[in-house]
Amino acid sequence: MPTPHSLRDAQLYGEIKILAGTACPDLAGEIASILHLPLGGRDVITFSNENIFVRLHSSVRGQDVYVIQTTSPPVNDNLMELLIMTQTLKLDSAGRITVVVPYICYARSDKKDQPRVPITARLVADMIEVAGADRYITLDMHAGQIQGFFSIPGDVLTAFHILSDHFVEKRPRLLDPVIVTADLGFAKKGRNFAQKIDAGMAFIEKRRAGNEGRAEALTIIGRVKDRDVIIVDDEVDTASSVSEAVQLVKKNGARDVYLCFVHPVLSGPAVERLRALPITEMVTTNTIPIPEHNCLPNLTVLSVAPLLAEVIRRAHEGRSVGEMFNE
Amino acid sequence: MPTPHSLRDAQLYGEIKILAGTACPDLAGEIASILHLPLGGRDVITFSNENIFVRLHSSVRGQDVYVIQTTSPPVNDNLMELLIMTQTLKLDSAGRITVVVPYICYARSDKKDQPRVPITARLVADMIEVAGADRYITLDMHAGQIQGFFSIPGDVLTAFHILSDHFVEKRPRLLDPVIVTADLGFAKKGRNFAQKIDAGMAFIEKRRAGNEGRAEALTIIGRVKDRDVIIVDDEVDTASSVSEAVQLVKKNGARDVYLCFVHPVLSGPAVERLRALPITEMVTTNTIPIPEHNCLPNLTVLSVAPLLAEVIRRAHEGRSVGEMFNE
Amino acid sequence: MPTPHSLRDAQLYGEIKILAGTACPDLAGEIASILHLPLGGRDVITFSNENIFVRLHSSVRGQDVYVIQTTSPPVNDNLMELLIMTQTLKLDSAGRITVVVPYICYARSDKKDQPRVPITARLVADMIEVAGADRYITLDMHAGQIQGFFSIPGDVLTAFHILSDHFVEKRPRLLDPVIVTADLGFAKKGRNFAQKIDAGMAFIEKRRAGNEGRAEALTIIGRVKDRDVIIVDDEVDTASSVSEAVQLVKKNGARDVYLCFVHPVLSGPAVERLRALPITEMVTTNTIPIPEHNCLPNLTVLSVAPLLAEVIRRAHEGRSVGEMFNE
Amino acid sequence: MPTPHSLRDAQLYGEIKILAGTACPDLAGEIASILHLPLGGRDVITFSNENIFVRLHSSVRGQDVYVIQTTSPPVNDNLMELLIMTQTLKLDSAGRITVVVPYICYARSDKKDQPRVPITARLVADMIEVAGADRYITLDMHAGQIQGFFSIPGDVLTAFHILSDHFVEKRPRLLDPVIVTADLGFAKKGRNFAQKIDAGMAFIEKRRAGNEGRAEALTIIGRVKDRDVIIVDDEVDTASSVSEAVQLVKKNGARDVYLCFVHPVLSGPAVERLRALPITEMVTTNTIPIPEHNCLPNLTVLSVAPLLAEVIRRAHEGRSVGEMFNE
Amino acid sequence: MPTPHSLRDAQLYGEIKILAGTACPDLAGEIASILHLPLGGRDVITFSNENIFVRLHSSVRGQDVYVIQTTSPPVNDNLMELLIMTQTLKLDSAGRITVVVPYICYARSDKKDQPRVPITARLVADMIEVAGADRYITLDMHAGQIQGFFSIPGDVLTAFHILSDHFVEKRPRLLDPVIVTADLGFAKKGRNFAQKIDAGMAFIEKRRAGNEGRAEALTIIGRVKDRDVIIVDDEVDTASSVSEAVQLVKKNGARDVYLCFVHPVLSGPAVERLRALPITEMVTTNTIPIPEHNCLPNLTVLSVAPLLAEVIRRAHEGRSVGEMFNE
Amino acid sequence: MPTPHSLRDAQLYGEIKILAGTACPDLAGEIASILHLPLGGRDVITFSNENIFVRLHSSVRGQDVYVIQTTSPPVNDNLMELLIMTQTLKLDSAGRITVVVPYICYARSDKKDQPRVPITARLVADMIEVAGADRYITLDMHAGQIQGFFSIPGDVLTAFHILSDHFVEKRPRLLDPVIVTADLGFAKKGRNFAQKIDAGMAFIEKRRAGNEGRAEALTIIGRVKDRDVIIVDDEVDTASSVSEAVQLVKKNGARDVYLCFVHPVLSGPAVERLRALPITEMVTTNTIPIPEHNCLPNLTVLSVAPLLAEVIRRAHEGRSVGEMFNE
Repeated sequence: MPTPHSLRDAQLYGEIKILAGTACPDLAGEIASILHLPLGGRDVITFSNENIFVRLHSSVRGQDVYVIQTTSPPVNDNLMELLIMTQTLKLDSAGRITVVVPYICYARSDKKDQPRVPITARLVADMIEVAGADRYITLDMHAGQIQGFFSIPGDVLTAFHILSDHFVEKRPRLLDPVIVTADLGFAKKGRNFAQKIDAGMAFIEKRRAGNEGRAEALTIIGRVKDRDVIIVDDEVDTASSVSEAVQLVKKNGARDVYLCFVHPVLSGPAVERLRALPITEMVTTNTIPIPEHNCLPNLTVLSVAPLLAEVIRRAHEGRSVGEMFNE
Repeated sequence: MPTPHSLRDAQLYGEIKILAGTACPDLAGEIASILHLPLGGRDVITFSNENIFVRLHSSVRGQDVYVIQTTSPPVNDNLMELLIMTQTLKLDSAGRITVVVPYICYARSDKKDQPRVPITARLVADMIEVAGADRYITLDMHAGQIQGFFSIPGDVLTAFHILSDHFVEKRPRLLDPVIVTADLGFAKKGRNFAQKIDAGMAFIEKRRAGNEGRAEALTIIGRVKDRDVIIVDDEVDTASSVSEAVQLVKKNGARDVYLCFVHPVLSGPAVERLRALPITEMVTTNTIPIPEHNCLPNLTVLSVAPLLAEVIRRAHEGRSVGEMFNE
Repeated sequence: MPTPHSLRDAQLYGEIKILAGTACPDLAGEIASILHLPLGGRDVITFSNENIFVRLHSSVRGQDVYVIQTTSPPVNDNLMELLIMTQTLKLDSAGRITVVVPYICYARSDKKDQPRVPITARLVADMIEVAGADRYITLDMHAGQIQGFFSIPGDVLTAFHILSDHFVEKRPRLLDPVIVTADLGFAKKGRNFAQKIDAGMAFIEKRRAGNEGRAEALTIIGRVKDRDVIIVDDEVDTASSVSEAVQLVKKNGARDVYLCFVHPVLSGPAVERLRALPITEMVTTNTIPIPEHNCLPNLTVLSVAPLLAEVIRRAHEGRSVGEMFNE
Repeated sequence: MPTPHSLRDAQLYGEIKILAGTACPDLAGEIASILHLPLGGRDVITFSNENIFVRLHSSVRGQDVYVIQTTSPPVNDNLMELLIMTQTLKLDSAGRITVVVPYICYARSDKKDQPRVPITARLVADMIEVAGADRYITLDMHAGQIQGFFSIPGDVLTAFHILSDHFVEKRPRLLDPVIVTADLGFAKKGRNFAQKIDAGMAFIEKRRAGNEGRAEALTIIGRVKDRDVIIVDDEVDTASSVSEAVQLVKKNGARDVYLCFVHPVLSGPAVERLRALPITEMVTTNTIPIPEHNCLPNLTVLSVAPLLAEVIRRAHEGRSVGEMFNE
Repeated sequence: MPTPHSLRDAQLYGEIKILAGTACPDLAGEIASILHLPLGGRDVITFSNENIFVRLHSSVRGQDVYVIQTTSPPVNDNLMELLIMTQTLKLDSAGRITVVVPYICYARSDKKDQPRVPITARLVADMIEVAGADRYITLDMHAGQIQGFFSIPGDVLTAFHILSDHFVEKRPRLLDPVIVTADLGFAKKGRNFAQKIDAGMAFIEKRRAGNEGRAEALTIIGRVKDRDVIIVDDEVDTASSVSEAVQLVKKNGARDVYLCFVHPVLSGPAVERLRALPITEMVTTNTIPIPEHNCLPNLTVLSVAPLLAEVIRRAHEGRSVGEMFNE
Repeated sequence: MPTPHSLRDAQLYGEIKILAGTACPDLAGEIASILHLPLGGRDVITFSNENIFVRLHSSVRGQDVYVIQTTSPPVNDNLMELLIMTQTLKLDSAGRITVVVPYICYARSDKKDQPRVPITARLVADMIEVAGADRYITLDMHAGQIQGFFSIPGDVLTAFHILSDHFVEKRPRLLDPVIVTADLGFAKKGRNFAQKIDAGMAFIEKRRAGNEGRAEALTIIGRVKDRDVIIVDDEVDTASSVSEAVQLVKKNGARDVYLCFVHPVLSGPAVERLRALPITEMVTTNTIPIPEHNCLPNLTVLSVAPLLAEVIRRAHEGRSVGEMFNE
């Protein structure tokens, strides 16, 4: 590992420059601070007709630029801001442009599970490419396959190492813990998490109850009685599934319930739902900023800034990212 | 001219289908009604995480589809909705997709008049193409050159015929009328308008007043005293320039003042400014819907629906659009 | 539904033509027969230097061509044959080219689950596009997201309707049946299958046993004792997981064991393993031809030809494919 | 600012190399001389069948190459020479190729102001890209929007700084000067020029006179009587508009008349027309070479070589171009 | 074969339309006449600044357009005219655009036979594609491989059938005829010609004579004494090689000498050289127009118009072109 | 020339890395050894379902990677392995990827010499590009024009220098040598070879004998009696033509017969045919590995490794390749 305070002089891609959109200023600042670099000056102006305008304070000609912008709500504004900033960099003859998108929007629209619907995640990938990005860095996309939607290379990282480390430390105090996934599509990743902290597994199966009806029946497959339960998912959006899951495991005799997820989307009724649930601790990350009034007392937010900073450093220097994870 | 109530059976591009986004339902309905066609059924859902989702009610396989969506505020949401709808049509194997965008956003970001800024209009063109559109139809883009930003063909129409017809009719009652443009960049189009209704011309020149200061000096070049003045522009956004122009021509002795523009963006303080001005009549179109409470008593809105409907009809049938204008 | 024996005259894409590669002649013949069309004449020659050569017997100029070729072993030869045939059609000015690939190779290489590996499924999609295909039709890709790897439209069908219909019919004779998935990544699709035939669910969790060791521990999550078990998967390749699964459910007291999967890859030791297992019935399809000597007595092969034929017919006529499934 | 005589060693894009086509040898030589670099050796041969052939004298592998070629008459030959030279560089594995085109042809064909005409400027941009250019540098394109026709980045410079500096120096001796534009499409840029040298503004409006006739009526809008007039434009081609303008301002009592434009196209009758006009001084640049016999005594030619040389230097070194203009 | 005077109504690609550039008006007129179609009206204007401008007299929306333009001298002007016309058609929403280029320029620049030279034929192919052509039709390209430079489909025809038919008819009057090729690169095509008219073969080998010198030694390989010699080539440009060849075969005792080639480029001293040679008959085609004063008395020009007309007809109707040649 | 044992530190494209596929391990090892570089570690696994999988042992981020893989049989497997390896490198963010393909497959499918056949060499070029290669290096493609099939730059080298040097050395012992080409398409390259070693030329003409029959008549054009004959070709595949040629020249009185060719494809009956022929010496290269049991006693294999190593070195350092050949 290089000394954390100095960047090797990588002529290869020009000098490094870090820019941030307006969506996650704290995270961007933290990354810049770890890298001992200033955030590049830029104006992002939204005119009263809602057209976004970007102006860089200084030239990026030939530089190796990293644009940090998450795509949480306002989703389409944040996405458009990212694209406009990227094109501005391209037109200013940047040497290489890497978009750093901690949370990528529309990732759940990744396949046609019914006819006549979009695959918006592919559209988003195409838009990022057409705007001029050379590479991208992101965290825990809803499906690993989305990496194949891009034709540019990228680093798709996971924050589950950070989350599982939290529970590994807590492990001695957990009673016969069991990982529960609220969505069967997450079963495999749940298993990996369980293995990491040496816990058991159980699944919640959701099934339409009647012939026509919208009612759903929930079943637990696996044993939760008298065990500490950790519900794991990649993101919590409206907290609807999570809410059902907590109630179900409690009804089935679970002891303490933990909630663990990477992306705190927390839209609509999510915070109120979570507030009402008997959850011991909720652990998430800062890929999406959480407004202060939504920071529930039992919420732990772990930072992905050190991870992103180290990956940016290595990408700039042309060094392996995989070896960070002993891979 | 074909009888307006029947569409020739154009095997060429499959059957015609008209779809609309959510941005200009009235205009879309009017176009469909003129064409004696139903609007295609579709769901446009915005989830609580602000991700937009589209689902078509029936297949468009092999059809010649026209998607009507303006890109007024909420600009980025409306643009994204247009793109998602377009990709949905492509993935459903539509025969040909034409996006009909009466007002195209970001058109004023069409050149780099300072360093380190975007050309967002080109980005928008690229996004429309990458989403899968085969053609586009639009009205009075800020600069004609934007047509060159697209590599797909398109019909760039003008509503100034509609606007000038309105003043031609009113011409006998106008006193020595003079066309005034508030922006020198619009001088040439202003001249065309003047010629059409046989009026004179004057210009407003804006210039920074001091060395450092932001203050601007306005000069009228040409004569407005005791004349009826028609201020012409392609769009009115915040109404700042227009407001200055009206006051200036009034101060210089103008008689009645008219305001004539295609796109009623009317953002921010626009309506309040316009309400306060001594304008006899404001004439615009419905390329952007105007909320009822913004419909000032002296506002005349002319519909572009007959124009768009006829162009769609001709595009579908493979007939000339140019000959509509005796060109 | 149209009468099955006549194709509407679809000027839209020219006349229909069905061609087949050499990989699945029986399936291609069956499809052509259902459509009452001859297979287009073509030579496919492999020279002694192993270069494949294709020559069409008659012109496809302006025609709507469907090329049927599965990509089972010899995988790379069959894939290359498909690509060469596609380019030949393009150079001969075909009107539209649809590749019909019942089983698409490399679909399990669809994400980077470790660093420094390929996403070969994306490469295959790119190759199909660069060869000149306008559309594709395939069945049960390993992950639905692979559809997003293509930028051309396609019909991704499922044969699980065919498989589940088989078990729905058999349902009254099954004792408290339970669906078991051998791979947690298939859990969600397994649930859909269970719902369709009104069965329960259980999962097999596989976990590395020791710290360093390659040994794996298998656990059943859910109840299988005294129940009829149906193990469901999208494909059976070496039959290694399936083999473990059958033994495990038997050890846990399962009654009859059924095996149900779409793609009979059956490579390496698969047939010998399956022959040795106490399986009541194995149900699969003909997306990949099974050599006669591998047709075990308890193997039921259901044909996907009627499904593919109907989809080809509808694609040619520009009619909805979704409505075939009441969607 | 770096010392003007040495280039920083910019590993970033390989070594710098300057090549020239045959269209503007003097300008190219001047640029090379300022940069203290030799012009790269190359043969440009036109065979008797008019096919142009290019051969480089030495390898450009990995180098940062700048090709200087203007596209004045013979327009298509010069353009084709530029494209062939660019492809030759690409095939020889140049590290980066920047085309330096002081005057870009077909720039007036930048929009469809009537139906069924080309946008040739977009075609030219596409041709430059398809030939393999990575970047471009040009001066005062007819419309700023043309920059959006390119998807590669570029530096679009202006020589108006050079021209206005000339008049700023002369300012004390000018009597109440007024800037006149012969074309309303140039009104806005004329205003900028006027502001720079602290002069007034007037416009010439041209209008079809009769109903059918081709006759045109010219009007001056603004005051020119007893003032020194500077007619400003981006280029002078046949000098038809300029000729009318000079006569009109003279007829309206103008004092001395100056003519100021960037690109001396001077085609057809231009030189004879200009020779006959009562113009005190004509000021232009060397973006297009002027044959000696066309160098009228009142013609001042300012060189753009120092500007282009400095921009090439900065592009090579990855430094800001904008800061040259205090932007 | 259809009756030659009527075109089937091919809805497939819209109505047929034939347009011509200015390079080969007679050939274009002949083709149109055979097809009983008018040539589409268009203006092609070259402004005094040499910029070419195109305007179509009527809309081509949805039509199947064929643009006939050869690329003989003025080569670059003719090529540019072709490209501009093609883009104009694309922007006017033509249904399909086929460029018909009887003689394609730069075809001899088809490989890098020395370092640091272009492959201009590939550049030309790219330019035709980027201008918007969907297909192309051409005759006897210098190398068949050039077809692989295009990624659009095309019909590469040969006029050697027409030329050899001429000699087949003359065959009874020829004495022990022998085909001679002046360039070894044409040896194989010469053999095909020889076979067609049942003649022998001989080759001329050209070799540098001294160590350094430019002098070349010519040898005949094969027997020409007392035989009628037919020198065959794809084009005659400066007639330098042909001139040497005629003299050499005469010196070696040849009887009558015939010259047979497809493309009469005839540049520079060609006509004077040919006039001076003892050639019995020169047979060529009208892929390039020959000015009347160059029509030597022993020159026979066969028309390719019937061939091109029939191919256009078949391309429009979606019928085989190969079967015209019993292939 | 640099000292052969050290590579200049070329920051330009990152550090150099050499990787090899499985097709020509000896050649790859020899190249790496000359460059004093290790071959990069990688796994190439073929699963039992024949899907190829690649995993790099260490990161190539930012590096200048050369992948050595020939495409001899198993042709499609070797090609696919090359493509997968290339995509893996791209996804791992390699700085630049050069594929080094000593023998490129499908090169004889380079034109449509009959209707309705592919141009597979173009397809292969497209596949290499779409997989992510930035450049390519290859040797003696069947036709020089194939270089124009690629839109990426490449170095197309020739091994004929190596082969002719062998015969130049042997020249004093050869009796009135004559170069014979078995295929007229190779006549021109044969002439170059003849010139290099100062030998005469003769050709074999092959012609269909009867009207319908497949029988062929062979004629020698030129003199071979009592001369040493060197039959030259780019590759020997089944040795059918070569076999006929040897027998024919022997029948016509040739003295010693030599065979000289770059690519030893040697498929099908080739080795048995060659074993049976009265050939004094066969000289070829190692662009394709020859299994030991096929190494006939009269076979001389010259290595292309020094040539490829030097070209890789120069490509990496950004130095001229052409000057290696005094060009």
